[in-house]
Amino acid sequence: MSYFEHFLSANQAYVALHGDLHLPIKPKTRVAIVTCMDSRLHVGHALGLALGDAHILRNAGGRVTEDVLRSLVISEQQLGTREIVVLHHTDCGAQTFTNASFHQELETKLGVDTSHMDFLPFSDVEASVREDMALLKASPLIPDDVAIYGGIYDVDTGRITKVEA
Amino acid sequence: MSYFEHFLSANQAYVALHGDLHLPIKPKTRVAIVTCMDSRLHVGHALGLALGDAHILRNAGGRVTEDVLRSLVISEQQLGTREIVVLHHTDCGAQTFTNASFHQELETKLGVDTSHMDFLPFSDVEASVREDMALLKASPLIPDDVAIYGGIYDVDTGRITKVEA
Repeated sequence: MSYFEHFLSANQAYVALHGDLHLPIKPKTRVAIVTCMDSRLHVGHALGLALGDAHILRNAGGRVTEDVLRSLVISEQQLGTREIVVLHHTDCGAQTFTNASFHQELETKLGVDTSHMDFLPFSDVEASVREDMALLKASPLIPDDVAIYGGIYDVDTGRITKVEA
Repeated sequence: MSYFEHFLSANQAYVALHGDLHLPIKPKTRVAIVTCMDSRLHVGHALGLALGDAHILRNAGGRVTEDVLRSLVISEQQLGTREIVVLHHTDCGAQTFTNASFHQELETKLGVDTSHMDFLPFSDVEASVREDMALLKASPLIPDDVAIYGGIYDVDTGRITKVEA
């Protein structure tokens, strides 16, 4: 049995609790959160979000990529968000490798040349948050009146610490 | 007061409940979920995930993009995941526009030419799930023995329906 089948079973119980809702498509707080895919972060719990509150964007590292910009433009221009939170975290998988070593590993494991790909690893989590905040501020796709905040989530304690730009 | 400051307040209460944990960096179920940023989906609740269970990747639409492939390669090759779930949903923001209309809107609103950008809108949610499952199956970056599943989340009922490839 796949985990997906387990998730479908768990979802049956969730449906009973969920009931019939008709929440608006636009997020209530008008916030979009950009964060990591890490399994030790449950964004809704950690930030006190109710259903319908905020857009949540997640990738490896919580990095601001072209795809994140694509998503943020839709979030802001189609769905009304006005505030972005960049949230990286301690003990991130993106801190465990370099592009050079990973390219070589993938050549060996998958037989694929990925030397054109930037996997966006980083060593200093505060620097990576600042770098991604700066990318957002500099992007012509993000209007100047969209507020940009940064933070670091501690996977051991659950605590979020603010990062100043 | 920004919503981010509200989130930081809510996070203080979360920290008290969280306690000191040392969960492994590798997700327990070895699953990566690719889904939408939509505010009406709380992935952990809807799938019955505990902290540490699964990677969660989210963008506008839950589409398989270059950035999602980058993240999945890290998820699988660095952090051991072996199963991918593509989960799209009803009433998606990506169903509310076309590339042509959105390009024009952004030219007017932001003064930016985005005609080179594909915002990945779709009309049929079952077709978009199948399309993204096919992209994963075809990618040399995703090994053949990684299982790929698809589903649709109903934002009104909370129910997930399986999509066969």
